[in-house]
Amino acid sequence: MKEAQKVGMVSIAATTESESFARIPEQSELKLDQEAAYVHITTNNTIYGTEWHREPEVGRVPLVADVSSDVFSRPIDVGRYALLYAGAQKNLGPAGVTMVLIREDLLARSPKGLPTMLDYNTHAQNKSLYNTPPVFAIYVVGLVAKWMLSEGGLEAIGRENAEKAKILYDALDSSGGFYRPHAKPGSRSNMNVTFRLPSEDLEKQFVAEAARQGFSGLKGHRSVGGIRASIYNAFPKKGVEALVSFVKEFAGKNG
Amino acid sequence: MKEAQKVGMVSIAATTESESFARIPEQSELKLDQEAAYVHITTNNTIYGTEWHREPEVGRVPLVADVSSDVFSRPIDVGRYALLYAGAQKNLGPAGVTMVLIREDLLARSPKGLPTMLDYNTHAQNKSLYNTPPVFAIYVVGLVAKWMLSEGGLEAIGRENAEKAKILYDALDSSGGFYRPHAKPGSRSNMNVTFRLPSEDLEKQFVAEAARQGFSGLKGHRSVGGIRASIYNAFPKKGVEALVSFVKEFAGKNG
Repeated sequence: MKEAQKVGMVSIAATTESESFARIPEQSELKLDQEAAYVHITTNNTIYGTEWHREPEVGRVPLVADVSSDVFSRPIDVGRYALLYAGAQKNLGPAGVTMVLIREDLLARSPKGLPTMLDYNTHAQNKSLYNTPPVFAIYVVGLVAKWMLSEGGLEAIGRENAEKAKILYDALDSSGGFYRPHAKPGSRSNMNVTFRLPSEDLEKQFVAEAARQGFSGLKGHRSVGGIRASIYNAFPKKGVEALVSFVKEFAGKNG
Repeated sequence: MKEAQKVGMVSIAATTESESFARIPEQSELKLDQEAAYVHITTNNTIYGTEWHREPEVGRVPLVADVSSDVFSRPIDVGRYALLYAGAQKNLGPAGVTMVLIREDLLARSPKGLPTMLDYNTHAQNKSLYNTPPVFAIYVVGLVAKWMLSEGGLEAIGRENAEKAKILYDALDSSGGFYRPHAKPGSRSNMNVTFRLPSEDLEKQFVAEAARQGFSGLKGHRSVGGIRASIYNAFPKKGVEALVSFVKEFAGKNG
């Protein structure tokens, strides 16, 4: 929004800011403008742990999505989107390469006079080889793609991710209120599971004890605090099961 | 030039286009405008094999340089430049990371309203960690920097590169006209040695026979043809010596 305001008019179709972004807006809440150049969503919010589980209906307006943090975590209906973009560093490969999928009719609408590197036509016409590409990062993305195929493809990976998230959310929901998941059911991310404990002291203790048992990166994003378990494709179900055991044990001792 | 023309007025201070870019312009040829926002040079031309061996005098106008293809090949007087930039993929490390060195007074002159990622202030204020950085590429750049220090630093590396280039140019110059170096003495690149043979057929044969002896990438850039030996930091002096032997042998058999 901040960036788009520099070059055009921006209208907020919906926000759940007043509810600390704890849920994805309902279709009925969307104030859509059929004259808009596009509608933008971010399919997964890594900070608040929310995720769009189906695309919003946006009529004839092109739907553009930042899919950085849940791309390739499940099948998606690519035909619903006019433009998809994603940094590689969550599910695709190492940081330093970005994926863009754009519909050809949008390419044709690209304004004239853009800086060459910022015009998607440059990259489409040159088969993404206009500039010297980050070959190592692209090579690793290729290996990851082969791994995903060997795991059974996105259908299988999507099932696995849904199971991983479910056993963790179930453990939190059945803790008798000791753990409070941030995101509302129906809006919960399968990639980033965010929750609070009864106090910040207990949250610190949770992170420290978890670290001693080998669970890293559980501290919530600095802007919201709490706990965040990131369970991207590369994180195995066995790891989630082990975390669930720790979650139950910690609640038993401190609840 | 093409890009700058999209946002401002461009004046060509000097060009040797009529001489197929075979030399760097002399100081006396430069038509400088003391009101210019900056003067831009590219310190090494990989296609034609020319290199600025000292900075042009540009008065009070900021000097901006693309140093992608000879950065860290020799010591340079950083204080002469207002802004230096370089893709890593020649002497620094793997493709996918870019180095920018900018003088603080230029940062302060950055126009308001730029896209956040295109404003150098964003990166300066965030210690180059505003975005998720390409960590693997940066890690390898760190290893290369340590290697350069262990080799004796830029003074030693500069001497080595000058020797490597000299023995190759000497072999070409003493071939009795069989080999014709493209760049004029005084303008010759220590990174990319470009030359022609008596015919395109002989050039093809040269590339093919060289490849059989293990020398790769000798074909000139597709836009100019001929032969190009790229002898960046990572290419060892022994490799140049072996190439010189091949060069002499080939001329002996075909001259």
